[in-house]
Amino acid sequence: MKIILVLNGPNLNLLGEREPGVYGSLSLNEINEMLVAEGIALGLEVKTTQSNQEGVLIDLLQDARVWASGVVFNPGGYTHTSVALRDAISAIRIPVVEVHLSNIYSREEFRHHSMISAVCASSIAGFGWQSYRLGIIALAAILMGKQG
Amino acid sequence: MKIILVLNGPNLNLLGEREPGVYGSLSLNEINEMLVAEGIALGLEVKTTQSNQEGVLIDLLQDARVWASGVVFNPGGYTHTSVALRDAISAIRIPVVEVHLSNIYSREEFRHHSMISAVCASSIAGFGWQSYRLGIIALAAILMGKQG
Amino acid sequence: MKIILVLNGPNLNLLGEREPGVYGSLSLNEINEMLVAEGIALGLEVKTTQSNQEGVLIDLLQDARVWASGVVFNPGGYTHTSVALRDAISAIRIPVVEVHLSNIYSREEFRHHSMISAVCASSIAGFGWQSYRLGIIALAAILMGKQG
Amino acid sequence: MKIILVLNGPNLNLLGEREPGVYGSLSLNEINEMLVAEGIALGLEVKTTQSNQEGVLIDLLQDARVWASGVVFNPGGYTHTSVALRDAISAIRIPVVEVHLSNIYSREEFRHHSMISAVCASSIAGFGWQSYRLGIIALAAILMGKQG
Amino acid sequence: MKIILVLNGPNLNLLGEREPGVYGSLSLNEINEMLVAEGIALGLEVKTTQSNQEGVLIDLLQDARVWASGVVFNPGGYTHTSVALRDAISAIRIPVVEVHLSNIYSREEFRHHSMISAVCASSIAGFGWQSYRLGIIALAAILMGKQG
Amino acid sequence: MKIILVLNGPNLNLLGEREPGVYGSLSLNEINEMLVAEGIALGLEVKTTQSNQEGVLIDLLQDARVWASGVVFNPGGYTHTSVALRDAISAIRIPVVEVHLSNIYSREEFRHHSMISAVCASSIAGFGWQSYRLGIIALAAILMGKQG
Amino acid sequence: MKIILVLNGPNLNLLGEREPGVYGSLSLNEINEMLVAEGIALGLEVKTTQSNQEGVLIDLLQDARVWASGVVFNPGGYTHTSVALRDAISAIRIPVVEVHLSNIYSREEFRHHSMISAVCASSIAGFGWQSYRLGIIALAAILMGKQG
Amino acid sequence: MKIILVLNGPNLNLLGEREPGVYGSLSLNEINEMLVAEGIALGLEVKTTQSNQEGVLIDLLQDARVWASGVVFNPGGYTHTSVALRDAISAIRIPVVEVHLSNIYSREEFRHHSMISAVCASSIAGFGWQSYRLGIIALAAILMGKQG
Amino acid sequence: MKIILVLNGPNLNLLGEREPGVYGSLSLNEINEMLVAEGIALGLEVKTTQSNQEGVLIDLLQDARVWASGVVFNPGGYTHTSVALRDAISAIRIPVVEVHLSNIYSREEFRHHSMISAVCASSIAGFGWQSYRLGIIALAAILMGKQG
Amino acid sequence: MKIILVLNGPNLNLLGEREPGVYGSLSLNEINEMLVAEGIALGLEVKTTQSNQEGVLIDLLQDARVWASGVVFNPGGYTHTSVALRDAISAIRIPVVEVHLSNIYSREEFRHHSMISAVCASSIAGFGWQSYRLGIIALAAILMGKQG
Amino acid sequence: MKIILVLNGPNLNLLGEREPGVYGSLSLNEINEMLVAEGIALGLEVKTTQSNQEGVLIDLLQDARVWASGVVFNPGGYTHTSVALRDAISAIRIPVVEVHLSNIYSREEFRHHSMISAVCASSIAGFGWQSYRLGIIALAAILMGKQG
Amino acid sequence: MKIILVLNGPNLNLLGEREPGVYGSLSLNEINEMLVAEGIALGLEVKTTQSNQEGVLIDLLQDARVWASGVVFNPGGYTHTSVALRDAISAIRIPVVEVHLSNIYSREEFRHHSMISAVCASSIAGFGWQSYRLGIIALAAILMGKQG
Repeated sequence: MKIILVLNGPNLNLLGEREPGVYGSLSLNEINEMLVAEGIALGLEVKTTQSNQEGVLIDLLQDARVWASGVVFNPGGYTHTSVALRDAISAIRIPVVEVHLSNIYSREEFRHHSMISAVCASSIAGFGWQSYRLGIIALAAILMGKQG
Repeated sequence: MKIILVLNGPNLNLLGEREPGVYGSLSLNEINEMLVAEGIALGLEVKTTQSNQEGVLIDLLQDARVWASGVVFNPGGYTHTSVALRDAISAIRIPVVEVHLSNIYSREEFRHHSMISAVCASSIAGFGWQSYRLGIIALAAILMGKQG
Repeated sequence: MKIILVLNGPNLNLLGEREPGVYGSLSLNEINEMLVAEGIALGLEVKTTQSNQEGVLIDLLQDARVWASGVVFNPGGYTHTSVALRDAISAIRIPVVEVHLSNIYSREEFRHHSMISAVCASSIAGFGWQSYRLGIIALAAILMGKQG
Repeated sequence: MKIILVLNGPNLNLLGEREPGVYGSLSLNEINEMLVAEGIALGLEVKTTQSNQEGVLIDLLQDARVWASGVVFNPGGYTHTSVALRDAISAIRIPVVEVHLSNIYSREEFRHHSMISAVCASSIAGFGWQSYRLGIIALAAILMGKQG
Repeated sequence: MKIILVLNGPNLNLLGEREPGVYGSLSLNEINEMLVAEGIALGLEVKTTQSNQEGVLIDLLQDARVWASGVVFNPGGYTHTSVALRDAISAIRIPVVEVHLSNIYSREEFRHHSMISAVCASSIAGFGWQSYRLGIIALAAILMGKQG
Repeated sequence: MKIILVLNGPNLNLLGEREPGVYGSLSLNEINEMLVAEGIALGLEVKTTQSNQEGVLIDLLQDARVWASGVVFNPGGYTHTSVALRDAISAIRIPVVEVHLSNIYSREEFRHHSMISAVCASSIAGFGWQSYRLGIIALAAILMGKQG
Repeated sequence: MKIILVLNGPNLNLLGEREPGVYGSLSLNEINEMLVAEGIALGLEVKTTQSNQEGVLIDLLQDARVWASGVVFNPGGYTHTSVALRDAISAIRIPVVEVHLSNIYSREEFRHHSMISAVCASSIAGFGWQSYRLGIIALAAILMGKQG
Repeated sequence: MKIILVLNGPNLNLLGEREPGVYGSLSLNEINEMLVAEGIALGLEVKTTQSNQEGVLIDLLQDARVWASGVVFNPGGYTHTSVALRDAISAIRIPVVEVHLSNIYSREEFRHHSMISAVCASSIAGFGWQSYRLGIIALAAILMGKQG
Repeated sequence: MKIILVLNGPNLNLLGEREPGVYGSLSLNEINEMLVAEGIALGLEVKTTQSNQEGVLIDLLQDARVWASGVVFNPGGYTHTSVALRDAISAIRIPVVEVHLSNIYSREEFRHHSMISAVCASSIAGFGWQSYRLGIIALAAILMGKQG
Repeated sequence: MKIILVLNGPNLNLLGEREPGVYGSLSLNEINEMLVAEGIALGLEVKTTQSNQEGVLIDLLQDARVWASGVVFNPGGYTHTSVALRDAISAIRIPVVEVHLSNIYSREEFRHHSMISAVCASSIAGFGWQSYRLGIIALAAILMGKQG
Repeated sequence: MKIILVLNGPNLNLLGEREPGVYGSLSLNEINEMLVAEGIALGLEVKTTQSNQEGVLIDLLQDARVWASGVVFNPGGYTHTSVALRDAISAIRIPVVEVHLSNIYSREEFRHHSMISAVCASSIAGFGWQSYRLGIIALAAILMGKQG
Repeated sequence: MKIILVLNGPNLNLLGEREPGVYGSLSLNEINEMLVAEGIALGLEVKTTQSNQEGVLIDLLQDARVWASGVVFNPGGYTHTSVALRDAISAIRIPVVEVHLSNIYSREEFRHHSMISAVCASSIAGFGWQSYRLGIIALAAILMGKQG
C-alpha cells in the first residue's frame, strides 16, 4: 500500500482553538483521523505530522522522499517567505500538493504570494479541512495515473 | 436533484488541440462528459457551457444564480484582468469554485495574480482535468454541509 | 429637444438586488424612470440602456455620437481596465460624464484608478442614484453653455 | 434654515486671474455669490471662506461641525498630500463633498490620487464652477434624505 | 492561392473620422481595398474584418486557424490588457503580425506595453496605413520561406 | 537619387556567427548586399555602416543629417539604455526607422523597453533580416509621400 | 526643576470626542492634567500645548530648544508627510520622543511610515494615553542618565 | 501574582558583546536581572528566555498563552520577515508588546517594516534596555486596567 | 529700480546654529545683508523674508506678484512635498529661481525629488550661501533680457 | 592664472541648430567665446571641449585632474545613466559643477534623475547659456575660498 | 594551525542527488574531503558542518567566533531572506566569505538579491564545488595578510 | 600555452590613486605584473588591457574570442548599465569571470545589480586585487576541466 504524508507547518497545532471563525472548530487531531480514514477508503496509508520549525519541515520533506509516494503540505506562515522550503520541494522528486484551509487571496496582501506554489504541481485553498481531503483524493488520482 | 454549472472561459474550447503538453490531450467535450458522470455519482446534475466573451460569461453567471446551487469556473485568460467578472461573482450568492488546469504560479508573472480568487470561496489549480473533478467533489461537500 | 444617453456597464442590471447596503435598494428600472422624469424637467430626452459586454458598450457609445448630445456613463467594472472604452470616448466628440454609485476611492485599491476619467470631461461619485441625477443636471448646464 | 459651508483651499483666492483657460474666468467672489443664490433657491444658507493654510482649514472644518449641516470642500493642492485634513474630515460627523474645478485625472500623475476622497462620502470634478453648484444640490438632497 | 486575414480591433471602424491628425484620413474601407490590391500583387488573397468585441476577435482568430495562412492584426485598445487574446494567438499555429497605425511608444505610458507582442512573431508600428501594407509584405515573405 | 543609411549598433558585426538560432545565419555583409540591391529596386542608394561605440553612432547619425534622407537603425544593446542616442535622433530632422531582428518583447524583461522608440517615427521587429528590408520599403514610401 | 514639553499636532484637540473606540474617551485636557501630575511625581515640570498648524508646531519646537530638556511629541497626521517637522527635530538638540495613541501599523498603509521616526531617538505607540505617560517616564530616565 | 514573559529573539544572547555603541554594554543576563527587579516593584513575576530559532520562539509564545498574562517581545532579525511569528501572536490571546533596543527606523530600509507590529497591541523602540523596562511598566498598566 | 524677493522656508531662521558643517556658519541675517549689497551692485533692490508656515509662504508669493520682478526661493523642507506651493508658483507670473544651500541629491532619497522644480524656470544647489548670490545674479540677467 | 575646463557631452555640438526653442539659438562656439571672456574678467583661463563619447569624456575628466582647478560639466544625455562618469568625477579631486541649459525637472520623467548630481558639489539648471556663466562665477568663488 | 569553518545551509546535504545538472554530481561529503585536503595544502585546518535550520546556523556562526579564524558560508535558500543570519554575521568579528555553487544571478529573480552579501567581506559564485575551494584560498590569503 | 585576458573597464587605470581606502594602494600595473606571474605559475599566459570606452571593451571582448581561452573581466561602472557588454559576453563562446575589487553589495543601491552577472558563468567580489588572482585560479581550473 502506498504511503502519503500530510505535513503541517507553524501554528496549525492550534487548529480548533485559533480563530475558529476562520479556521474551523476541528482540532488537528480530529482532522488527521478523518484523513487517515479517507486514505484507507482510497487504498492509501496516510501519515501525519506537524512542526513549527522551518528547518524541521525541510528535514521531514527530505526524509519523506525515501518512503512516501506524495505529500499534502500546508506550509502555514512559511508559505509566503521560505525559499528553503521551496528548494526542498524541488529537490525531492515526489509530488507535493499545496493546501490551505482559508482562501489566502482574500486576506492580507502579503498572503497573496506563495513562494511554494511555483514548485508544487498543484494547489487547493479555501475549503477548510476539506482542502486536505481533496488533496488526498487528488494524490490518489495522480498515483493511479488518472490525471489527464 | 441539485444542479451545478461548469463554466469555461476563453480558448478552453480548443482543449486537446492547444499545447497538449500543457493542457492535456482531452477535448472539452470529453472532459464535460466525465464531469457529468462524476456529478451523477455524487447525486448532482452537472451542466456545462463555454464562451470566449467576457460579457457572455457575466450573463451566464447572473443567470445561474436562479437555477444553480454552485459553479465550477475556469475563467481562462480573464482570470488576471476582469473586474467585471469579479463583480458578477460577488453579486450572485451561490458558491463559485475557481479552477485551473495548469499551475498558474509556475507560468508568466502576469498569470500569478487572479482578480477572481478574492471573491471565490476557494480555488484548485494544476491537476489537469482532475481540477474540474475535484471542484465538483468540493461543491458536493459544500452543498451537503460537510465543510468543517 | 436634445437627447442624452444614460449608459450602464456590467452587473448594474442587478441593482437593488446586489449588496443593497452598498448600492441602494432601487432597481435600475426604477432609477431610469426617475432619470427620464428629471430629464423632462430639464428639457432633455433621457434614453437609458445597459450591457454586460465591453464591446457592446463601445458600439453603443459609437452609435450615440450621431443622435445624442451627451452621455452619463457608469462603466462598472470596466472602469478600471478598459483602454478600448477610453478610446471610444476619445473618438466620439460629445461630452461624457463618468458616474459611480459608490465612492470608488474608499473601496479596494484596484478600484482607485479609473482608466476612463482622463478622457471624460468630468466625474461624479458616491451619491447613490443621485450620482446619475447630478450627471444629468451637469450635462444640461453644459449643453446650455452655462459652465463657467 | 440649514447652513452649509463652501470651503476653499490654497490658491483658489486667485480664481479668475490664474490660468483662466484651466480654471475659468470667474473670480472666487463671483462664484460665491452665485452659490449663495443657489443655496437660497434650495432652502439652504451658504457660507463661504478660503485659506491658504492647511492648519487653518483644519480649524475651519472643526468649527463647522457645530454649526453646519454639511461642507462642500475644494482642498486645492492639499488634496494630494494632507493626512491631517483627512483626519479632520473623519473626526467631524457632518457630510463633506469633495469638489474640483478641473478634471484632476487628466493632469499630472501626482494629482490623480486624492488623500481626501476615501473619507468624503462623495466627489465631483471637472465641471468648472458648476462643480460647487452640483455639490450644493447634492448636499441638499442628502440633507433632505433623498439619497437612494 | 494562400489567404491571409487582416483583423482590426475596437474603434478602428472609425478610422478617417477619429483624430485624423493621429490616425490619418483614410477610412477602414479605403485601407482594406488597398490591402486587397496589395495582396493580389503579391499573390495572396486578403480578407478583412473588424470587431469591437474582445471575445469576437478571439472567435475570429480561432476560426482563421483552419483557412488562413497568416494574420495581420491591429488589436487596438485590447493590445495593452488582453490575456485572452494573447492566449488565442498562442493557441492557433499560424503566424500573426502585430501592427499599429501610430507609434504606441510615444503616447501615454499605459500604451507602451503590449500584452500581445510576446506571442506574435513580429510587430510593425508607426507607419499609418502603411503598417498594414508592410505586414502583408512581411507575411508574404514568411509564407514563401524567404525569412533569413 | 536619394540616399538612406542602414546603421547597425553593437555586436551586429557578429551576425551569422552569434546565436544563429536567434539571429539567423546570414552575415552582416550578406544582409547589407541584399539591402543595397533592394534599395536600387526602389530607386534609393543604400549606404551601410556599423559601430560598437555609442558615441560613434551619435557621430554617424549627426553626419547623416546632411547627406541622407532617412535612416534604418538597429541600435542593438543601446536600444534599452541610451538617452544620448535618443537625443541624437531628436536633434536630426530626417526620419529614423527603428528595426530589430528578433522580437524584443519575447526576450528578457529589460529588453521590453526601448529608449529609442518614442523619438523614432516607427519601428519594425521580429522578421530577421527582413526587418531591414521592410524598413527600407517603409522609408521609400515615406520619402515618396505615400504614407496615409 | 527640569521642564519637558508635551506637544500635540492636528486634530488631537478633539480627543475624547473623535472616535472614542480608537482614541479613548479622555479629553486632551484630562490627559494633560494626569501628565502634569506624573511629571511632578518624577521631579519634572510638564508643559503642554497643541496646534493644528505644521508651521506653528515648528515654531514651538524651535522655541522649546531654549527652555525645555526634552519633548514628548505626537505629530498626528503630519507624522507621515512632514519633512519640515523632521528638519526642525534634527535642528534642535534636545531629545524628542515620538508617541502615538493607537498602533499606526495596524491602520491604513500610508500610516505605516513615519517621516519623523528616523530623527527621534525613540518611539512609543499603541498604549492610548499611557503612551504619553511612558514617554515622560522614558524622558525622565534619559535626563537622569539612566539609559544603558 | 501575575506572570509576564520577556522573550528575546536571535543574536540578543550576544548583547553587551555585539556592537556596544549601538546596543549598549549590558549583557542580556544583567538586563534580565534588572527586569525581574522592576517586575517585583510592580507586583509582577518576570520570566525571561531567548532563542535563535524562529520555530522555538513560536513554541514559546504558544506555551506562554497558558501561564503568562502578557509578553514583552524583542523578535530581533525575525521582526522584518516572519509571517509565522505574526500568526503565533495572533493565535494566542494575551497582550504582546513589541520592543527594540535601537530605533529601527534610522537603520537600513529593510528594518523599517515590522511584520509583527500590526498584530501587537503596541510597540516601544530606541530606549536601549529601558525599552524592556517601559514594556513591563506598560504591561503592568494594561493588566491593572489602567489604559484609557 | 526693480525689486526681487529672497524668500526662505522652514528652519532656515536657524542658519548658522543648525548643523554648521552642512549649512555653514553664517546666520540668515548675515546672508541677507550680503545679498542686499549684492543686489545694489547689480542695480536691484533685494527684500528678504522667512516663514516656517507653508500657507504664509503661499501668501508671500501671491503678494510678491504685484510688487516684485522675481523671486529667489529656498523652500526648505516643503521642497519635497508641497503641491500647494507648486500651484502658487504656477499661478504668479514672475520668474522664481529655486535655490538650496546643500546638494539635495547627495542626501536622503526623499530629498532627491523636488515638487517645486518643474514649475520653477531654473534651480541652483550646493554652493552654500553663494547659491542665493548666484540666484540674484541669474535673476538680474533674466530681468535685463540677457538669457540666450 | 588658474585654469578651468568647460566640458560638454553628447549632442551639445549641435547647439543653436537643435530645437532652438528649448536650447537657445547660440552655437556652442559662440557660447564658448563668451565663457572665455567671462573667465578673463574673473581672472581665470577657461578651456572648452566637447565629445559625444562617454569614454572620451572620462578620459578628459581624468586628464583635467592634473592641470585644471575645476570643471563646469554638462553631461547631456549621459547625465541620467552613466555610472562610469560618476566614478570618474569621484576619482578626480577637483570640484565639478553640473550644469544644464534647460530645466531637466520639467521634461520627461527619465530626465528627472541625475546619476551625476550626488558626486558633484553643486548644480545649476535652466538658465540657458547663462547656466555655464553662473557655473564659472561659482567656481571662481570656490577657488577664491569665498564659499560660506 | 588556524582553523576555518565551511558552513552549509538548507538542502545542501542533498548535493550530488539534487539536480546534478545544476549542482554537480559530487556529494557534500566528497566535497568536504577535498576541502580538508586543500586546507592542509594551505596550512589551515578545515572543519565542515551543515544544517537545514536557520537558528542552528546562527548558533554555529556564534560558536565559531571563539575558535575559528574565518568562515566559508553557503547559506542556501536563507541567502535571500534571513535578516537574522545577516545580524549573526555582523555580530561575530571573523571574516565570512559567501559562496554559491551556481550563478544565482542567472536564476529566478528572487535569487538575485542576497540579504547576506552586504555584511560579508566578499563573495564567490558559479564555480560549482570550486567556489568553496576558492573561498578557502581567499581566506588563506586574508589570514596571511596578503590582501592588497 | 593557453592565453587568458584580464580586462579592466573605466577608471580602473586610476587604481592606487583613487580612494585607496576602498580600492587598495596598488597601481593597475603592479597588479597586472603579479597576475602575469600568477599565470606563469599556473601554466597560463596572462595578457592585460584597460579602456574607459564601452565600445572599445566590446571590441576587445570580440577580438579575444579568437585568441583567448577565457577572460577575467572587471567592467567597472559599466557593470550596472551595459546591455551591449552583456550581449558581447553572450556572443563570444569563451568563459568570462566577472570580478570586482570591492563588495558591490555593501555600496550604493544602484551598484547592487549587475547587468553582466547573468551571462558570466561566475563572479568574485570583495577581495581587493586578490579578486583577479582568484579569477585566474578559477579559470585555470575550468580550462583544465576540474570544475565539479
